[in-house]
Amino acid sequence: MVTSRSAAAARPQGVASSRRRGPVLERAILEATLEQLSTVGWNGLTMEGVAVGAQTGKAAVYRRWPSKEDLVADALQTGLPTLDEAPDHGSVREDLYELCGRVRAAMYSKVGFALRSVIHECDSEAAERFHGLIVRGVIEPSTRLFREVVQRGIRRGDIRADATDGLLCDVIPAMMMYRSKMCASEWPDAEIAALVDQVMMPLLRARST
Amino acid sequence: MVTSRSAAAARPQGVASSRRRGPVLERAILEATLEQLSTVGWNGLTMEGVAVGAQTGKAAVYRRWPSKEDLVADALQTGLPTLDEAPDHGSVREDLYELCGRVRAAMYSKVGFALRSVIHECDSEAAERFHGLIVRGVIEPSTRLFREVVQRGIRRGDIRADATDGLLCDVIPAMMMYRSKMCASEWPDAEIAALVDQVMMPLLRARST
Repeated sequence: MVTSRSAAAARPQGVASSRRRGPVLERAILEATLEQLSTVGWNGLTMEGVAVGAQTGKAAVYRRWPSKEDLVADALQTGLPTLDEAPDHGSVREDLYELCGRVRAAMYSKVGFALRSVIHECDSEAAERFHGLIVRGVIEPSTRLFREVVQRGIRRGDIRADATDGLLCDVIPAMMMYRSKMCASEWPDAEIAALVDQVMMPLLRARST
Repeated sequence: MVTSRSAAAARPQGVASSRRRGPVLERAILEATLEQLSTVGWNGLTMEGVAVGAQTGKAAVYRRWPSKEDLVADALQTGLPTLDEAPDHGSVREDLYELCGRVRAAMYSKVGFALRSVIHECDSEAAERFHGLIVRGVIEPSTRLFREVVQRGIRRGDIRADATDGLLCDVIPAMMMYRSKMCASEWPDAEIAALVDQVMMPLLRARST
């Protein structure tokens, strides 16, 4: 270690060689933040608690994130599922099944629960900031994937040409939010099947008006 | 006052003859509660503040409602819109337009804002109680009306026979909650038209797969 320390004097990047390097430590801190959020919630979360969870000092946390809001925003951002590639099974129906499954997985992941604790608990100003994060990080990307799947179906002639118009792309996220919130549904496969086969496919194949 | 008081001795109902009678005072207290909720919110609401708003004493409030939860539950219950009669214009489309308009009116009424302040602010245990109140007082009745409208359409042969199956009755409430919450939509007429004509009518007329 002495050598690495003396080397550190010459190469600043080497400073952490005997400890967790920057990105590794940051990852641990963000992980600990999500853990805290999904257990003690927004109100219960403290920089101190996060530092303990990440087995580091409070200073190491504050050095990177000046406030609880900044830390939580980064943790949620980092934890968000990557919704950048649309499924492509050559069938809108198959693709929608997979897409709904992915949304469900995101809703019931650790970050999904963390997001809900934030939205429900924190004061409206912070909530506004996190709401934007959800819209940009979850709602918009999943709507984009849905639109892509439908557009591919239109090109194949499987579904009606105006199937991406207006509000149609909101139906799946709306139903998934509504039934999980108001009906405490956890979206078992049978319910995803009902959403795809009784609602979405008839809607997408229908003649408009 | 003396006469009314002495009369009161004989006729208990007469006690309030020179003041607001029970039901009138109760109404004033419940009104003041909704007013407080939609201004200072659940956390800001106090029995004292309600009493002042209703121009009565704290004792008069506590005599009827032992706790803040009880008072708020009654206030919300009393303020809920009556959703007991389905529109009947002889056209599913017309009926859905009216139904969506009613839901919008309820969402943006004083009690609608009061309900949201409660759901967002109060601790999860109380929220659970009010959530049940919303489900029984808003969600279930409006779903019932929607189902009635659709069933009438089925009997007229306007729409497909299985149009009330599964999740179809959740689409309108789901869309209205989702877009008001995530897109800050206040459901202008054009958006209600899009929901009815681009989503619901095609969905209800479609052949189910």
